[in-house]
Amino acid sequence: MALKKKPVNGMKDILPSEMAVRMYVTELIRKTYAEFGFSSIETPAVEHIGNLLSKQGGENEKLIFKILKRGEKLDLSKATTEENVTDSGLRYDLTLPLSRYYANHMNELPAPFKALQIGSVWRADRPQRGRFRQFTQCDIDILGDPSYLAEIELILATTTVLGKLDFHNFTIRINDRKILKAMASKAGFEPADYGKVFIILDKMDKIGLEGVREELLESYPEEKVTTYLAQFDENVDPAVLMEGSPLPEIISVVDKVKTADFRVMFDPTLVRGMSYYTGPIFEIAMDEFGGSVGGGGRYDEMIGKFTGHDTPAVGFSIGFERIIMLLLERGFEVPDAKEKVAFLIEKKMPSERLADVFAEAQKERDAGKAVWISIMKKNKKFQKEQLAQEGYTDIREFFAE
Amino acid sequence: MALKKKPVNGMKDILPSEMAVRMYVTELIRKTYAEFGFSSIETPAVEHIGNLLSKQGGENEKLIFKILKRGEKLDLSKATTEENVTDSGLRYDLTLPLSRYYANHMNELPAPFKALQIGSVWRADRPQRGRFRQFTQCDIDILGDPSYLAEIELILATTTVLGKLDFHNFTIRINDRKILKAMASKAGFEPADYGKVFIILDKMDKIGLEGVREELLESYPEEKVTTYLAQFDENVDPAVLMEGSPLPEIISVVDKVKTADFRVMFDPTLVRGMSYYTGPIFEIAMDEFGGSVGGGGRYDEMIGKFTGHDTPAVGFSIGFERIIMLLLERGFEVPDAKEKVAFLIEKKMPSERLADVFAEAQKERDAGKAVWISIMKKNKKFQKEQLAQEGYTDIREFFAE
Repeated sequence: MALKKKPVNGMKDILPSEMAVRMYVTELIRKTYAEFGFSSIETPAVEHIGNLLSKQGGENEKLIFKILKRGEKLDLSKATTEENVTDSGLRYDLTLPLSRYYANHMNELPAPFKALQIGSVWRADRPQRGRFRQFTQCDIDILGDPSYLAEIELILATTTVLGKLDFHNFTIRINDRKILKAMASKAGFEPADYGKVFIILDKMDKIGLEGVREELLESYPEEKVTTYLAQFDENVDPAVLMEGSPLPEIISVVDKVKTADFRVMFDPTLVRGMSYYTGPIFEIAMDEFGGSVGGGGRYDEMIGKFTGHDTPAVGFSIGFERIIMLLLERGFEVPDAKEKVAFLIEKKMPSERLADVFAEAQKERDAGKAVWISIMKKNKKFQKEQLAQEGYTDIREFFAE
Repeated sequence: MALKKKPVNGMKDILPSEMAVRMYVTELIRKTYAEFGFSSIETPAVEHIGNLLSKQGGENEKLIFKILKRGEKLDLSKATTEENVTDSGLRYDLTLPLSRYYANHMNELPAPFKALQIGSVWRADRPQRGRFRQFTQCDIDILGDPSYLAEIELILATTTVLGKLDFHNFTIRINDRKILKAMASKAGFEPADYGKVFIILDKMDKIGLEGVREELLESYPEEKVTTYLAQFDENVDPAVLMEGSPLPEIISVVDKVKTADFRVMFDPTLVRGMSYYTGPIFEIAMDEFGGSVGGGGRYDEMIGKFTGHDTPAVGFSIGFERIIMLLLERGFEVPDAKEKVAFLIEKKMPSERLADVFAEAQKERDAGKAVWISIMKKNKKFQKEQLAQEGYTDIREFFAE
């Protein structure tokens, strides 16, 4: 039986033209983040199942690709639950592995530690256009810094990358989990309610204030709901809501120092899904893309799950796949590609002469050109057209005699 | 219960110092191979289990990390075999996914297609020093070229990379599966014996000619064994063995054109493990490393397993992890690192003044320097020492007033 040609359902082969853009963006990101003092690290794709299922991953925990136990550890005859047959899985994000990494290597790393991770993550999401089950994430995190300098650096670094990629007129929405909680508390909600209330508030973008009100009223008394939502009225002074939070300082410094063309805006309705956030949270919004192109926040309590001691941590994840998609849609071309030369060699060229041709190619390569070598085909016209499409405009022919 | 700090058994966290070397080598490889006309591509880490178990992977098929089926597809109550509970797994090499990729996208790719893949593979090998269950492979392959120009290009490209990394005095051992088979056939072995005979021959390095003879005699008559091994005598003219093979031309051209410091040597005892090879095979041997630092060969029949039509294919895999190990042992330092400046900022600096400091950092970053920003710690001396260790020799202090 023939083998399967298509990739596994929901996963993707990357063709050379897209790959060139991905590599260019990756390089630009690494170079820019290095200027901000971030060090590249790598964690394994495979993680302990217990870590993955530790409630740090929210909804993503339902989407884990689990890996079968091996050898004696696997006894299918006695297996009744997935827990019996699996002890590891593919990571669904880079934040959990980073926290494990930092807990494991803290003593070998500078404090604070500024980490850059670019790597694949896997989620068994329902496959849909433009969303794949393996995709690249690109995270910067500052670990061990309780000050809001960390938030400022993350926002400046991320927006500098976006600016270099020629993105304009975007918005950094910013909020603080502490503000979210204070507003809920002020309306009389109990801490146990917060999760549900915030999930509903998060829909403000889609269903509007009235929609949020209706959904809240399904579970909570009118008085609480009204008090709560009154705080989101545009007449409320944002300075009052932000009192006690570092947001005004973060916003003010970012606004003054930023080099890219964007605005940073306090948005009391910003929730961000993950329950592990403990302080400021932020998200990139772009008009040309109806949704978030990245986000992050402070998660001071995750590393403590590994070490027993809370450690300040804040991260910003740029939406790598969305950025690539937007660039491809824009017809982005990688700048400064090498000069390309093709050598077509007639069949049965004696090895003496062949060596001369390869030596000539080597000279061109030493001069920084890309040299394509292949046998001259019978249909030379088609071969040349195909090479021209690949950017080989300088095509040289070498004959056996 | 605390979460697990160590990586999954046999896998590895990569610290910033090693990561810097890995990124430098990756960049150098990509740049060099681009000069040889190779295009980067990417295949998913997850592959169909049927493809992985199709006998293209030799011993590696026993080492697959299998992924649990999901949702309705998984019925543990009826599961008796691994086949019942898994339909995909992590790739154990890059050659099988490349063959699938080429079969799938042939019409969108130039002919011949020159592919570069750098990516992780996974093998559930017994963990041992320096060998991990997730590691990076780095393959170049030329697909659709039946001529030995492809072999020449692969050897020149690979050795150019090694030369640029300052490896000297290494050897490319080269043989041809057709020569291996002809020699076995001449001694009277049947095609059905070849596999076993070659596995024994492959031990020549370790157990010597006498050891090989003894092992062969355990299964085969003395006459055959004696005739067979007589062909490996040093008095036999290699030209006779290589008759009809392209090896003499490949060796002659590579020898004349090579830029790195190595020799290319016909070795009739070279076997290479994988049964899918059909023509020339090669391997890099380095005295400083007792074993292969890469290898490859022609596998003209693998793509046909996907398409029904054989397609010429030849690849060369550089031993990425071994090269990194050798560089680290050598104390290799990444050249041309950026100039590094650290800004230490006193706590509670007003946001006005903070903006000035960040603006100054931005200027340095625009000038191509890496700027580290963090809060000034109480133990400033220790903080400065730690930064100096990280290469931040220019440390500037900024006070709140």
